[in-house]
Amino acid sequence: MAEFDTGLPSIRQVQRFIKDKTKVNIKLTTQELLTGTILWQDVQCLCLSDEANQTILVWRQALVYLKPNT
Amino acid sequence: MAEFDTGLPSIRQVQRFIKDKTKVNIKLTTQELLTGTILWQDVQCLCLSDEANQTILVWRQALVYLKPNT
Amino acid sequence: MAEFDTGLPSIRQVQRFIKDKTKVNIKLTTQELLTGTILWQDVQCLCLSDEANQTILVWRQALVYLKPNT
Amino acid sequence: MAEFDTGLPSIRQVQRFIKDKTKVNIKLTTQELLTGTILWQDVQCLCLSDEANQTILVWRQALVYLKPNT
Amino acid sequence: MAEFDTGLPSIRQVQRFIKDKTKVNIKLTTQELLTGTILWQDVQCLCLSDEANQTILVWRQALVYLKPNT
Amino acid sequence: MAEFDTGLPSIRQVQRFIKDKTKVNIKLTTQELLTGTILWQDVQCLCLSDEANQTILVWRQALVYLKPNT
Repeated sequence: MAEFDTGLPSIRQVQRFIKDKTKVNIKLTTQELLTGTILWQDVQCLCLSDEANQTILVWRQALVYLKPNT
Repeated sequence: MAEFDTGLPSIRQVQRFIKDKTKVNIKLTTQELLTGTILWQDVQCLCLSDEANQTILVWRQALVYLKPNT
Repeated sequence: MAEFDTGLPSIRQVQRFIKDKTKVNIKLTTQELLTGTILWQDVQCLCLSDEANQTILVWRQALVYLKPNT
Repeated sequence: MAEFDTGLPSIRQVQRFIKDKTKVNIKLTTQELLTGTILWQDVQCLCLSDEANQTILVWRQALVYLKPNT
Repeated sequence: MAEFDTGLPSIRQVQRFIKDKTKVNIKLTTQELLTGTILWQDVQCLCLSDEANQTILVWRQALVYLKPNT
Repeated sequence: MAEFDTGLPSIRQVQRFIKDKTKVNIKLTTQELLTGTILWQDVQCLCLSDEANQTILVWRQALVYLKPNT
């Protein structure tokens, strides 16, 4: 993603998950599924607080899909 | 994809699937096959409602192919 | 590919396959080998009609190689 | 990442790990988990000193996630 | 590769292989090793004639390494 | 990497390995580990002379990490 366009529906959707502290599952290119709440996002990364309250910097290039943890 | 060109045949094809609520299969770089209807698309993601009515944000970079679920 | 340059030899080669309805094999990053005829191409995708006449939207980013199905 | 924007939260987060000599785990697209301290970063790479004090040039394109080694 | 810069050493190296009809091995991201002679190259693809004289369009994004077949 | 910025620390680090004919290990996205000395680099590739003195053109997109072969 060349620029960080905060108007994009997908950026706004992640922003809502951040605001609502929604617990999410994030599938990565390595097949791993991370679970936690997203603290912030920028053009390069999402910052996740996982279930052990560890802060994980996840690179956008490694994202496959993201969904609420129901 | 640098810009979101709504004139592209491939973008218009996905837009038709959205309008017609076509059930589609989406193959991802992780080999997974997601099934559902596409709610919306932007330059970074497709938003899918899967067969359990869960909303999944799928990153375009992880798309391999997409076809109607016949 | 930033822009869709129809003058490129590789774009013209695919265009010939489209015009001649050449049956091709397409190897994808998921190791799958799709077989069919290419209906059209744009900067983001190839649109394939497979052997079951199903239309498949294949993302360029997932292409490894393409060859006539002899 | 087109340009090296030192104002990005994710770049600043890595810069803090460098300054504080935080021991980190870095997950790579090859599934490997590198452990060490980050010496410096630029638009293309992170330079890591691993647990055997070896200097490893890690390409940003291969980064999946990064977290403090607790 | 944004533009096809024929001055690049790597482009010139491949051009020499084309001119000299050097038999090469090409390792792809799918782990496959293609063998043949390169017919031409552009910004998106290499066109290979394999050992069965089949023409294969190989996408640059799938290239890992290339070496003379000794 | 859009442009070949010779001022980058990571480019200068590889340049030192070239100048000093440092034997290096290069981990690729295919999990392979190449060993040899780097002959030159450009925006698209590194050119390696491996332990059998074979010249290998390695695409930057396939680089995961690089370290001196100690």
